Amino acid sequence: MSTPDPLPSWNEGDPKHAILAFVDAVTDEAGPDHVPPAERLAVFDNDGTLWPEQPLYIQLAFALDRVRQLAGDHPEWKTTQPFQAVLEGDLATLGAAGLAGIQQIVGATHAGMTSVEFDKIARDWFAGAEHPRFHRPYTALAYRPMIEVLEHLRANGFKTYAVSGGGIEFMRAISDRMYGIPPDQVIGSSGKVRYELRGGTPVLVRLPEIDFIDDKDGKPVAIQKFIGQRPIAAFGNSDGDQQMLQWTAAGPGRSLAVLVDHTDADREFDYRVSPMGTLKLALDEANERGWTVVSMKDDWKEIFATD
Amino acid sequence: MSTPDPLPSWNEGDPKHAILAFVDAVTDEAGPDHVPPAERLAVFDNDGTLWPEQPLYIQLAFALDRVRQLAGDHPEWKTTQPFQAVLEGDLATLGAAGLAGIQQIVGATHAGMTSVEFDKIARDWFAGAEHPRFHRPYTALAYRPMIEVLEHLRANGFKTYAVSGGGIEFMRAISDRMYGIPPDQVIGSSGKVRYELRGGTPVLVRLPEIDFIDDKDGKPVAIQKFIGQRPIAAFGNSDGDQQMLQWTAAGPGRSLAVLVDHTDADREFDYRVSPMGTLKLALDEANERGWTVVSMKDDWKEIFATD
Repeated sequence: MSTPDPLPSWNEGDPKHAILAFVDAVTDEAGPDHVPPAERLAVFDNDGTLWPEQPLYIQLAFALDRVRQLAGDHPEWKTTQPFQAVLEGDLATLGAAGLAGIQQIVGATHAGMTSVEFDKIARDWFAGAEHPRFHRPYTALAYRPMIEVLEHLRANGFKTYAVSGGGIEFMRAISDRMYGIPPDQVIGSSGKVRYELRGGTPVLVRLPEIDFIDDKDGKPVAIQKFIGQRPIAAFGNSDGDQQMLQWTAAGPGRSLAVLVDHTDADREFDYRVSPMGTLKLALDEANERGWTVVSMKDDWKEIFATD
Repeated sequence: MSTPDPLPSWNEGDPKHAILAFVDAVTDEAGPDHVPPAERLAVFDNDGTLWPEQPLYIQLAFALDRVRQLAGDHPEWKTTQPFQAVLEGDLATLGAAGLAGIQQIVGATHAGMTSVEFDKIARDWFAGAEHPRFHRPYTALAYRPMIEVLEHLRANGFKTYAVSGGGIEFMRAISDRMYGIPPDQVIGSSGKVRYELRGGTPVLVRLPEIDFIDDKDGKPVAIQKFIGQRPIAAFGNSDGDQQMLQWTAAGPGRSLAVLVDHTDADREFDYRVSPMGTLKLALDEANERGWTVVSMKDDWKEIFATD
């Protein structure tokens, strides 16, 4: 009897075989690595693991578009950095503003409105925006091989989670549609929120203060807080995912730790040519501990899912 | 055709009929109040709503037992308040130490260990401790009528969550077994946690600092952070649940807001005789807005589930 290949967009090779062998092992009720369904938890970084993060984090593209959209209400931005740089397309000045500049832009574009209003703003943006290189909506840029992994895991009783440095509510606007991950299985960075009654109607107001950054050490901390159990599979693509992979791989039973390496300049990006984030410590640890490293160029037949 | 009563421990009356009518309405695909399964979310306070909170919050009983168990390693506690009061059973002095005293006790009993160690400590305690009045394990003290509600909701496509001022990891030790609520659907108060490598092995260390108090305004804030969607049903028993009920009831479609009123001195506790927390603002709002108020004495045939 032949069953359909659950990972048709993957070339035959070690990564594909490692993923399939892991799922077979933990679902084999008679085998030594069997894991009951309630403990089959898999966590996925988002930026660079489930969708592209080049030339900009998609959420940063959203924030820059919002600055341009809101500029009419903020005449002072024409002469105030880092907003002036955004409006003038002056990427050098914007880059020099660094993390503090990014935080100002995020504060001005992600706070001040209610949670319901922000959700609508994000959904409206996704409905119209497109990627500058691929000329497709961002919602059509999920990595097809990773969608196959998500679906194969869920078909085998796994619960799948996004665990990302990206904003939790920004991801929730697209996570179910793009990845089949419902809002309560999305974990991300967040700002503080205040509950208040406006004329008797309760609202949640987004404040311009960081509450939590879901990156590096923060990822296992957030996994424990939101999920309360250690995952048995983790997928990432940068040093920001190293601790999540460590925590997952250190569990008592069989586990799967996967790093996606961006090696395909033609079809996506080669981070050796156009660096994004860092993949050094996590890659060293992957090689040392035998984690699975995926080369997008060599291991993936297709890059993007159709919408 | 007659189907079994899904709420056999409830007397016939307005609360039982309100719960059944709500579930019928939101699951009726042809009706005006239909809600798709992905939006059928129900949140439950824990202390006083799913299990007793008298004569002490169960988590406080755990903390006091831990002080007694750990006292051998802390000779200084014999002469240091509030620990001395715990060891001497001096409830007047303990009460006078107030919230600051409780925080010292919680810090000394809930922090310093890893997340894995704390989980074992809590499970071991539940395996041996029993309620001082009912002489049964705490795990046998879930309110049977509420278990029926949880099961009826889940049988109708609802996802059920605990949203409590209690400690998130303390509840997770029993939530699946007692309520059928898995760890990732438990939301509660939490302390800060630090990720570290100990001899190459990753651990999450519980720190003696409060991270978040999941009470009053904090409940809708936490619901948005953890769940990311507004529930359509909420169950509470005190003013600490008022904002959660407000937020739920203010949704765009049909909703159910329920307050459990402790009125049964014989079978449980009558808070008019032995006050616990406060139920004043939430009860006034329930009467004003037509929320459902459950009298334990009048509406519940049975109080406790068997283990």
